[in-house]
Amino acid sequence: MEVINNLLNYEGLKIVQDTEGFKFSLDTILLANFVKIKKTKTKLIDLCTGNIPIPLILSKNKNLDIYAVELQEKVFKQAQKAIKINNLKNITLINEDVKNIGKKFETDTFDIITCNPPFFKFSEKTNSTKNKMKSIARHEIEVNLLQIMQISRKILKNNGYLYIVHRTERLIEILECMKKNNIEPKTIQFVFPKKSKESNIVLIEGSKNGKSGIKILKPLIVHNEDGTYKKNIINMFGKGG
Amino acid sequence: MEVINNLLNYEGLKIVQDTEGFKFSLDTILLANFVKIKKTKTKLIDLCTGNIPIPLILSKNKNLDIYAVELQEKVFKQAQKAIKINNLKNITLINEDVKNIGKKFETDTFDIITCNPPFFKFSEKTNSTKNKMKSIARHEIEVNLLQIMQISRKILKNNGYLYIVHRTERLIEILECMKKNNIEPKTIQFVFPKKSKESNIVLIEGSKNGKSGIKILKPLIVHNEDGTYKKNIINMFGKGG
Repeated sequence: MEVINNLLNYEGLKIVQDTEGFKFSLDTILLANFVKIKKTKTKLIDLCTGNIPIPLILSKNKNLDIYAVELQEKVFKQAQKAIKINNLKNITLINEDVKNIGKKFETDTFDIITCNPPFFKFSEKTNSTKNKMKSIARHEIEVNLLQIMQISRKILKNNGYLYIVHRTERLIEILECMKKNNIEPKTIQFVFPKKSKESNIVLIEGSKNGKSGIKILKPLIVHNEDGTYKKNIINMFGKGG
Repeated sequence: MEVINNLLNYEGLKIVQDTEGFKFSLDTILLANFVKIKKTKTKLIDLCTGNIPIPLILSKNKNLDIYAVELQEKVFKQAQKAIKINNLKNITLINEDVKNIGKKFETDTFDIITCNPPFFKFSEKTNSTKNKMKSIARHEIEVNLLQIMQISRKILKNNGYLYIVHRTERLIEILECMKKNNIEPKTIQFVFPKKSKESNIVLIEGSKNGKSGIKILKPLIVHNEDGTYKKNIINMFGKGG
């Protein structure tokens, strides 16, 4: 069932989602807050955009010219609806396979790429799950890490930035894919469910042909020991609201 | 001037150091506490051992057969003295260039390698500093990262572990060197001077020919916001004491 929800407290923004589908999650909010945006005109593309939570959150920045790519037609239509409901002018929606985006745009087109890709490797078991829409969003069925890095290498401007959120357990593979494609890892922030737990989510900033030298930002802890959200996380929910 | 100090509260252990030289630091304590030691007979070698703080801390574990390698004769003699003063039987001291250790030992000899290597890249400026003993301990004059990984690849047993402490800013280079030499990064713990600061130090565990899959342990914060040591750090100082 399709529903229209408030996108947290983001200036009254609405998001269109399917109660049976893949709903936007904390990872998305973390990534949107991790992106560094300059005060100059910036061309940004969000790959695997889903029902465009990242473009919605970033859309308040009027220097941004946002492109958003979604393969699945049903999700694409939800995104279209969200743009209409929110009356946004700076988002261009593209219903396309991410794998074709490298061909669709010229080399050196974008200042920034954001991507909350499918987190899990493809397996036969994956493929047999009933909800295909959700599977494609969560598993590397249609696009994998290496392809995302290859596309980024092409369409990012020189020294342009890629921002990606992923599962921490795949960190080494991600860094290897980045290096292979001349996307130099510049900043990493690890997300920990609690301060006493291992990291489950990682935020990574890479720069095309960037100089080497990495910063590991202060740890981002999501919950207090009692399970309630930390104040800085609640602030992210409410930012701009 | 050479002095004999208590090695924190480690069961009354003494360490011999030079007031002008490179003294053991928090990094060393963190690395010694990061090492995982099984309850079976274990052959361990500490490269760039200096005045053997790591072997001293680990020596209380009687399952360990410890080798410790130090190039600089003056420091080597301090290490010898420490072994004598502390009356330790399970440490074999080697006065040798680390670069020759790959030749000195057979392939697949050690279960564990520990290493607190020189942190800084070599530069001409480095070379001109007056205190050569300190320079060699801090700068990659005599041995560099790649060489350490090449040696590890040779003398570690299959699935043996390398434990290394280093500056966080060199993380990407370290991971690349490890992968190139089939030392799979398995566990990483980032150390932060305070919870609001970027990480400055990183602890890494790698496994020779290990399976891929990384864990990022809970963040290790050194100081409270008021500059005093965190309780878990104080516990490390006093462990076994």
